[in-house]
Amino acid sequence: MNFAIIRYVLGIVLEFQAGFLLLPCLVSGIYREHEGLSFVVMAVVCFAAGLLLIRNKPENKAYYARDGLVIVSLSWLILSITGALPFYINREIPSFTDALFETISGFTTTGASILTDVDGMSKCCLFWRSFTHWIGGMGVIVFIIAIMPMTGGYNMHLMRAESPGPSVGKLVPKARQSALILYLIYMALTVGQIILLLIAGMPLFDAFTITFGSAGTGGFAVHTSGMGDYTMLMQGIIAVFIILYGMNFNFYFYFLGKHKKDAFRMTEIRWYLGILFTAVLIITVNIRGYFSHLYEAFHHALFQSASIMTTTGFATADFDTWPNLSKTILVSLMMIGACAGSTGGGLKVSRVVILLKSIRQEIARFIHPRSVTSINMDQKAVPKETVQGVNSYLATYAMIFAASLLLLSVFENGSPQMLFTSVAATLNNIGPGLGEVGPMANYAALSMPGKYILMFDMLAGRLELYPMLILLVPEIWKTR
Amino acid sequence: MNFAIIRYVLGIVLEFQAGFLLLPCLVSGIYREHEGLSFVVMAVVCFAAGLLLIRNKPENKAYYARDGLVIVSLSWLILSITGALPFYINREIPSFTDALFETISGFTTTGASILTDVDGMSKCCLFWRSFTHWIGGMGVIVFIIAIMPMTGGYNMHLMRAESPGPSVGKLVPKARQSALILYLIYMALTVGQIILLLIAGMPLFDAFTITFGSAGTGGFAVHTSGMGDYTMLMQGIIAVFIILYGMNFNFYFYFLGKHKKDAFRMTEIRWYLGILFTAVLIITVNIRGYFSHLYEAFHHALFQSASIMTTTGFATADFDTWPNLSKTILVSLMMIGACAGSTGGGLKVSRVVILLKSIRQEIARFIHPRSVTSINMDQKAVPKETVQGVNSYLATYAMIFAASLLLLSVFENGSPQMLFTSVAATLNNIGPGLGEVGPMANYAALSMPGKYILMFDMLAGRLELYPMLILLVPEIWKTR
Repeated sequence: MNFAIIRYVLGIVLEFQAGFLLLPCLVSGIYREHEGLSFVVMAVVCFAAGLLLIRNKPENKAYYARDGLVIVSLSWLILSITGALPFYINREIPSFTDALFETISGFTTTGASILTDVDGMSKCCLFWRSFTHWIGGMGVIVFIIAIMPMTGGYNMHLMRAESPGPSVGKLVPKARQSALILYLIYMALTVGQIILLLIAGMPLFDAFTITFGSAGTGGFAVHTSGMGDYTMLMQGIIAVFIILYGMNFNFYFYFLGKHKKDAFRMTEIRWYLGILFTAVLIITVNIRGYFSHLYEAFHHALFQSASIMTTTGFATADFDTWPNLSKTILVSLMMIGACAGSTGGGLKVSRVVILLKSIRQEIARFIHPRSVTSINMDQKAVPKETVQGVNSYLATYAMIFAASLLLLSVFENGSPQMLFTSVAATLNNIGPGLGEVGPMANYAALSMPGKYILMFDMLAGRLELYPMLILLVPEIWKTR
Repeated sequence: MNFAIIRYVLGIVLEFQAGFLLLPCLVSGIYREHEGLSFVVMAVVCFAAGLLLIRNKPENKAYYARDGLVIVSLSWLILSITGALPFYINREIPSFTDALFETISGFTTTGASILTDVDGMSKCCLFWRSFTHWIGGMGVIVFIIAIMPMTGGYNMHLMRAESPGPSVGKLVPKARQSALILYLIYMALTVGQIILLLIAGMPLFDAFTITFGSAGTGGFAVHTSGMGDYTMLMQGIIAVFIILYGMNFNFYFYFLGKHKKDAFRMTEIRWYLGILFTAVLIITVNIRGYFSHLYEAFHHALFQSASIMTTTGFATADFDTWPNLSKTILVSLMMIGACAGSTGGGLKVSRVVILLKSIRQEIARFIHPRSVTSINMDQKAVPKETVQGVNSYLATYAMIFAASLLLLSVFENGSPQMLFTSVAATLNNIGPGLGEVGPMANYAALSMPGKYILMFDMLAGRLELYPMLILLVPEIWKTR
């Protein structure tokens, strides 16, 4: 392990965090809230701590994939802890565990909340809470790479470790340009959504925070009622945008470049939209009787399916009361998740497609044992290592799921449904589960150890499992 | 596809089924029950139909793995249908769907029942029901191979398709000898258990039927009270034997042969016993307060863990009322299942071990990208294709699980817990789930389509997924 470079990058992360923390200070100035002071304090602390860490430039620039994984997981831990302290310092969230849970839930774009009275929070805290979604969505390391000219060819390692999906960051050969393009697209969508929501009549504060929550496919709302009080037009705008954020960003890259046709030929995009709209259709029919008009049923089916599949977790309706079929479809969408290279979580559509195709291949092998077949995505054969990687990912995912469920059941007395869906909702970065942690409830009642288990799951889910697991390997911490 | 050979083998299967059906006729003679007539009728029908099919020997002996899979899945369907008809003909189970469910549950050694009043059934029907467990446990095709000298080298294909686990039938080079050894061990354990139960004071009829249910790791009881009315000694004998039936039968082969040491060096056996006894310990502590003595808690923890992990499904206590931790451990044991090459179901211990080791390998690869590592089992490297196969198996398993859950939720209104555990309990060939299908309840209340979905899952689980999936591929049915 190259500890010098890890220290150095963590210092840069802290400097950026100091900058991010100035935004809620600004908000508290506008709304004249004294709660903003805690953000000022933490901004100063981060700035000073960061300076200490970056004082000495690392001499040894030798740098491997494992260092990238450790940097990414430690960065996220540091961001979460320093991001949680303002809530704790100004007593808006009196328990540190709860403040950390809320902040990890924010950065990992999960959107699982321990707050019981969202309306009672200060504007600056609500703003910060939603803003963590925006940073976490595209990734803070990717952000740093986009902005800072870092020397050395190791940026791709960092970017790969932070970005979701089996193959990311291949837009252009250089990491910095890729990161910049991603953030420009992200920024453009964000600005577009804010403008449309304002035109639709949403208050300025809500337009910003809800857009942050949509962009990162996070899911924190700024009212206890969730999305329920917005007009159907606003809800519709949100639904369309979360579907856009859940697409593989390569789509926009192709779409805006010379290869417009390639954008619509992307296997993952086709499957993503196909699965989503099939689910919407079935749910619409299934919940028809719960609403007075068919278009209302469609509206809520669309919003909920998009919100769950992109792992956003906004809710316009209490789907916990919907029939079993709709609930099972929603839980399946939770597991599948959004596209790779999007801001969404879950297993990712491309992984599911590769898994399905490898099952078909396995069956075909029984029928024609000697035929050599390959799995195709985007008219190209997928390398064997990628297929093997996707399979290992599923196994790792299943084991983390099972281990979390076992550990959680040591500390929680809730229903099995609650246990199962709270692991599913955090590991997939969705937010609400079913039952005691359903869309109209929250995670406040869980035990302290239970909350830490779910925090681990949120980070593991966002960082694609391995960066968090590698922290548990003792060998990593040996200095040689 | 070689339809001639398929027809021929199915004919042989029917002849054997005719023979099996004579046993309940015998029982009905002893207990002077008129219900036995339906078994006589079906035995005659099977005998005649079988004769028709084997009249012409197939000329083309070319024979591939796919033919093996189709033969096995069709054999099991035919055995189930002809085995269900006696219940339906003598009106002991008035619905054909229910009769088929009960029989498939028997042959696949699931033990999920639709009977609400087991005590009210005739002895011959109860005998047949339990005897299907015994046949299904080791496999009917394996039985035929052991007994009939079949020409050609294709027996191994058949045996592989029917036997559980990633590598079976390699005891000795010849399939027939392997099958014979397996059945001799199986028979010896069966006889041993019957004798011990009789010594412990169990009535003759119960000793036979309960032993059949244990040997196949099936789980059908012959009283509505399940195992509750037997003495603790009898329950203890049953617990020990189901643990023995859940071991990889290679263990006995080594143990009885020249390589005694190899028996205890088997990786799978060590993991199997390790997981089982860890679970027993934790559950004992966890349910301590539910019983007046510690040894009672241990007794029930042992019985339940062994029963669930070997996918037998006998119950001495209503674990549905136990704390969450115990329930989650039991559900995890359900998924892991027994050893490969045993009569138990589930994913199988060896698959779980290979998955865990491949996760460790994946993490190690991040730390040392250039090191070449291999996965070892029994001090030997596991071939890459096996590891890949195990990974595909998990993916296929997950997809069948998800698809069943989705389909089931179209037809059932039960709790999500019931939906989830009824798929888990049938796909892993266990029997009881939680909630409405818990250990003290049954599957009678499910809808007709729901029952057919679970029947598919039972067969898919017993035959290791692919033989049932291959039946759904249209190409298989084309005559060329």
